[in-house]
Amino acid sequence: MIRTTGASLTEEVVSRLGSTPDPRMREVMQALVRHLHAFATEVQLTDAEWLAGIRFLTATGQMCDDVRQEFILLSDTLGLSSLVDLINHSDVEALATETTILGPFYVPESPWRENASSIVEFEDGGEATIVRGVVRDDRGTPIRDAIVDVWHNAATGFYAVQQPEVQPATNLRGRFRTNEDGRYEFLTVRPVPYPIPNDGPVGRLLRDTGRHEWRAAHIHMKVSADGHIPLTTHVFDRASDFLDSDTVFGVKDSLIADFVPGDDGSLICEYDITLVREAK
Amino acid sequence: MIRTTGASLTEEVVSRLGSTPDPRMREVMQALVRHLHAFATEVQLTDAEWLAGIRFLTATGQMCDDVRQEFILLSDTLGLSSLVDLINHSDVEALATETTILGPFYVPESPWRENASSIVEFEDGGEATIVRGVVRDDRGTPIRDAIVDVWHNAATGFYAVQQPEVQPATNLRGRFRTNEDGRYEFLTVRPVPYPIPNDGPVGRLLRDTGRHEWRAAHIHMKVSADGHIPLTTHVFDRASDFLDSDTVFGVKDSLIADFVPGDDGSLICEYDITLVREAK
Repeated sequence: MIRTTGASLTEEVVSRLGSTPDPRMREVMQALVRHLHAFATEVQLTDAEWLAGIRFLTATGQMCDDVRQEFILLSDTLGLSSLVDLINHSDVEALATETTILGPFYVPESPWRENASSIVEFEDGGEATIVRGVVRDDRGTPIRDAIVDVWHNAATGFYAVQQPEVQPATNLRGRFRTNEDGRYEFLTVRPVPYPIPNDGPVGRLLRDTGRHEWRAAHIHMKVSADGHIPLTTHVFDRASDFLDSDTVFGVKDSLIADFVPGDDGSLICEYDITLVREAK
Repeated sequence: MIRTTGASLTEEVVSRLGSTPDPRMREVMQALVRHLHAFATEVQLTDAEWLAGIRFLTATGQMCDDVRQEFILLSDTLGLSSLVDLINHSDVEALATETTILGPFYVPESPWRENASSIVEFEDGGEATIVRGVVRDDRGTPIRDAIVDVWHNAATGFYAVQQPEVQPATNLRGRFRTNEDGRYEFLTVRPVPYPIPNDGPVGRLLRDTGRHEWRAAHIHMKVSADGHIPLTTHVFDRASDFLDSDTVFGVKDSLIADFVPGDDGSLICEYDITLVREAK
């Protein structure tokens, strides 16, 4: 009589999943089971830990509703969202500006605005800031009519979409087109660090693992141009707290920029972007 | 400027989790992140697949309520529950009867019954069956006053706990004590295969992976005796369908027994149990 072992059980489950009709789903599910079983085996997961895991996942699902996605927060805080972004959007030739995650606060169809105009529609404090730069292709040629779609939080820490009764819906976001020199420029206020929602299972997990819930201050950007691979990224403020411990692992060295005082008292953030040309 | 890679990101997350105060939680979380990232990297998980996973986990959590635990079903059907059972309850010296999962239908405090009495409290069809055997220790010595706690489903496929308005609450379950020869015996009906709940995300996953939702016919047993390591197992009917494809991976070769016709027309299932003595 052959006794079942962990290894034989894992292979039985993997074999059973061989019946999956879709080849890609079969590959993903078999790899998932191998890694899930390897994890449990490596740590010799106890009955109590297994049950704690079941309860954590259940509470995470039950925290989700139309405006709260606790599983995405979990993915973000375990670095999985950033890893999936890297897998799918990193430029292996290292020519393009680095990407980072989209985040939960993107709203499509931001208003078109003129270069050098302001995205501030509601006065709520904050340091006046000019953000400007050049969008270039991977040969260094400036790109005219590239679209620079930006959004960030107010000095209070909140995005407009989080405060529908306070901020105008289009506050602190807008779309710009680069000029004939590839330049974009907008006026705004300095972004500030903010906590991700911490009143659910993910907040408890952060506390239990000795971590905080803060993101470093940043401005989101989606940049696109005809014939080029679009880019989703942030520009981080070098003076921000939490650059070394951004709770969703969104910071990359190359995305950190200086916000320096300009002649008129505003801060100036110069940030150039490189897009890679699409393969013909 | 050093660009972030998948490997450097994984190590950053693992390093960040080094702040976890509890050493065991630190070990478990760091291993979890390494395996989660290794999975996503190995299959080069796409944005769309990541989002499908987020949605699946969310729906699984939202399917759970006081009587339905969809994440346990998920764990069961991915073989994780059986693996955790093996990790925690397999007898490395291979002396004891093999274990298998408890399952969701166990109810504590079943009625005490006399050996050779019936656990059938409600006539609903099924083949009359005698289940009997000897409980021994790992030297082969019969154990007197061992407790054999049994439960199984009716010929309709349902456990009493699933049909509170149809079956008496204590139907098809009971506790027996072995006699001076280590023997237990009870009268019942033959168990039948049954489907796990298939109207949720786990049912969809089974269908998408070309699998069915059936468990092979079995009788659950919890067996304990003073001075011995308690055991949770099943005895499976060798004539059952689905022995090779039990959807929760509960079947082990050594747990399959014959249900053979006896002189009085009842089936007889002889099933002996071995408990290992506790270390002094």
